[in-house]
Amino acid sequence: MFFVDGSGSEWASEVRVASRLTVTYRVRAEPAAIEARAVALAVEQSVEMPVSAIDDPSVRDGIVGRVEAISPIDEALFEVRIGLAGATVGNDAGQLLSMLFGNSSLHDDVVLADVELPEEVATAFGGPHHGIAGLRTRLSAFGRALTCTALKPQGLRPKALANLAKQFAEGGVDIVKDDHGLADQAYSPFAERVAAVAEALQEVAARRGRHILYAPSLSGDLDRLRTQVACARKAGLTTVMVAPMVLGVANVHTLVAENPDIAVLAHPSLGGAARIAPPLLFGKLFRLFGADAVVFPNAGGRFGYSRETCLELADAARGPWQDLRPSFPVPAGGMTQARVPELLDTYGADVVLLIGGALLAAGPRLVAETEAFVARVHGHHYKGVP
Amino acid sequence: MFFVDGSGSEWASEVRVASRLTVTYRVRAEPAAIEARAVALAVEQSVEMPVSAIDDPSVRDGIVGRVEAISPIDEALFEVRIGLAGATVGNDAGQLLSMLFGNSSLHDDVVLADVELPEEVATAFGGPHHGIAGLRTRLSAFGRALTCTALKPQGLRPKALANLAKQFAEGGVDIVKDDHGLADQAYSPFAERVAAVAEALQEVAARRGRHILYAPSLSGDLDRLRTQVACARKAGLTTVMVAPMVLGVANVHTLVAENPDIAVLAHPSLGGAARIAPPLLFGKLFRLFGADAVVFPNAGGRFGYSRETCLELADAARGPWQDLRPSFPVPAGGMTQARVPELLDTYGADVVLLIGGALLAAGPRLVAETEAFVARVHGHHYKGVP
Repeated sequence: MFFVDGSGSEWASEVRVASRLTVTYRVRAEPAAIEARAVALAVEQSVEMPVSAIDDPSVRDGIVGRVEAISPIDEALFEVRIGLAGATVGNDAGQLLSMLFGNSSLHDDVVLADVELPEEVATAFGGPHHGIAGLRTRLSAFGRALTCTALKPQGLRPKALANLAKQFAEGGVDIVKDDHGLADQAYSPFAERVAAVAEALQEVAARRGRHILYAPSLSGDLDRLRTQVACARKAGLTTVMVAPMVLGVANVHTLVAENPDIAVLAHPSLGGAARIAPPLLFGKLFRLFGADAVVFPNAGGRFGYSRETCLELADAARGPWQDLRPSFPVPAGGMTQARVPELLDTYGADVVLLIGGALLAAGPRLVAETEAFVARVHGHHYKGVP
Repeated sequence: MFFVDGSGSEWASEVRVASRLTVTYRVRAEPAAIEARAVALAVEQSVEMPVSAIDDPSVRDGIVGRVEAISPIDEALFEVRIGLAGATVGNDAGQLLSMLFGNSSLHDDVVLADVELPEEVATAFGGPHHGIAGLRTRLSAFGRALTCTALKPQGLRPKALANLAKQFAEGGVDIVKDDHGLADQAYSPFAERVAAVAEALQEVAARRGRHILYAPSLSGDLDRLRTQVACARKAGLTTVMVAPMVLGVANVHTLVAENPDIAVLAHPSLGGAARIAPPLLFGKLFRLFGADAVVFPNAGGRFGYSRETCLELADAARGPWQDLRPSFPVPAGGMTQARVPELLDTYGADVVLLIGGALLAAGPRLVAETEAFVARVHGHHYKGVP
């Protein structure tokens, strides 16, 4: 690894570690071109203008992005670490994303790989209110993985969805979430659906003496998100699902702050994660903005993430990071019952297993299939995985 | 071009053109695999579950995505057209994006290329309130391109930004916008900055008898966006800038609906447009959600879009599309004075030319440089471009 002083010797004397974000990018470039490309990236993600035209020394020294290190990954790919001023972010989740990757997301040769935050930034955002321990307590489910499934297809009326939910509950699943396609459509209005599903689940929970969480999918602008949370509360719910990249991360963060008693499940919709490294976007950033559990497309399902990427993502979601509570990783996207042992061997007990379509495919045997899924999870012997 | 009936003969008799969105994707696949891949894509973007497990015929026939056509682009790349039910979108901009590309944005082999909307969906969203004609009227600027520049670098205090704005105004520029990095930072709070810049511009406008629009960059959640719009109004402003992919498209759409008198400039930040075709995202969708002018990275600047892509984007922004007003294309991202004639020959008069850094690089000659930019635009002879 070699170090580069990005834009002149005036930076050398400045060290403001605590107020700097360190952002890691993966950049495709010829070795001869990487230094200049790294400096251009640092400028693009900070002042976005010719540095030579900046008169103000506090801007030149404190605000202009600084290339901290360049290290080769292979002959045409480099890891570039850039320091950005924490002061430019404030406490705005959208502004953080914009500073990390706003304009550079438009460049074909760059992937946003990782970020290290100063403690005050991490603390200001705050992360999950409940996280792994909180969700376990709500479900009285300790020492084993949690089970989760999805209500779908969209197009079904509230009554049909409630009937599905009831069967999943009879099967003993911990968490029932909406498919992210369920919004506030005319054929299945949010309020009506949520009331019907919640009632069906509560009936089974009371009768069978079980804890079940239902996470309805929120949609729309911040006003509608608030109305929907109020509606979920009215139905006795304590968990919701959000898609931060669709709703706007700042709105999700506000919703989290306003509802400290509500647990939040994050959906990866519109994550376009080929351009933002999945462990960063789904693992770290969604956690930072307050998701108690983050859904991601698992290896070997319908999406192309490698096992290594998924493990890294799970580590990012639940590993130690500043003082933020750990979030549950939720591997999903085409998971099946047959994979439960492998999934649990891979992820250990601090995981929510989400199987949707493969359970629904059982049709009339839905309760039995759900019971089998639940039994596999509850009966799994963990091999001392982390 | 050949046609594929995606998931069974029961679809053949169904034609619901008016209620279907037709979405075009570019999919990398082997010829032998494309039909199955197209069906999987249609399912992923609609019901996201095994179609065989769907009992309800209204869902199977009306909601499941339908492969309408597959046509080869080259031997391993196909254009796939999929029909999606308009009823799943409602009037929610976020849900529209989610239906178009929510989960599939996570797939490496797919690019979202285009969408055709039924008239009622286009009308419900509504597009720009002002568009090209409205902005021209505000500026009393007809038959020529508009000029625009950017306040930066971030890190400057309000007074320094106001001083820059004053010089741009003295130089005769039509629109001064914030750099998208200017948010609500402690060193330059939004309210203070906007008041200072607006006052400086109004002084020059009054003294020189000019029209100048200032578009401050909005940030944060919907509450903060509203506070910032109110603050801009208080300063006498009639234009704002938003980054829809950062703020959440539904919030931007709400802001547009609530402020029919405010013109809106859209910034491409976080557009990650390598995965969503730029003409669709910046040209059509940002216009659909109400942007009166859309900024995009122009060919030959700091970003890699081809001239062809940029022209297509400009056509999408200002060409006839349903009953929506045309939006101004704003080619940007490293433009220089020397390119003005070429830009105007390329885009014609219905364009806003945005030059930021290259003007700022003039330092003490900023007013003169701005005047020269303005003179080139005002004096250009248009060669009958569209």
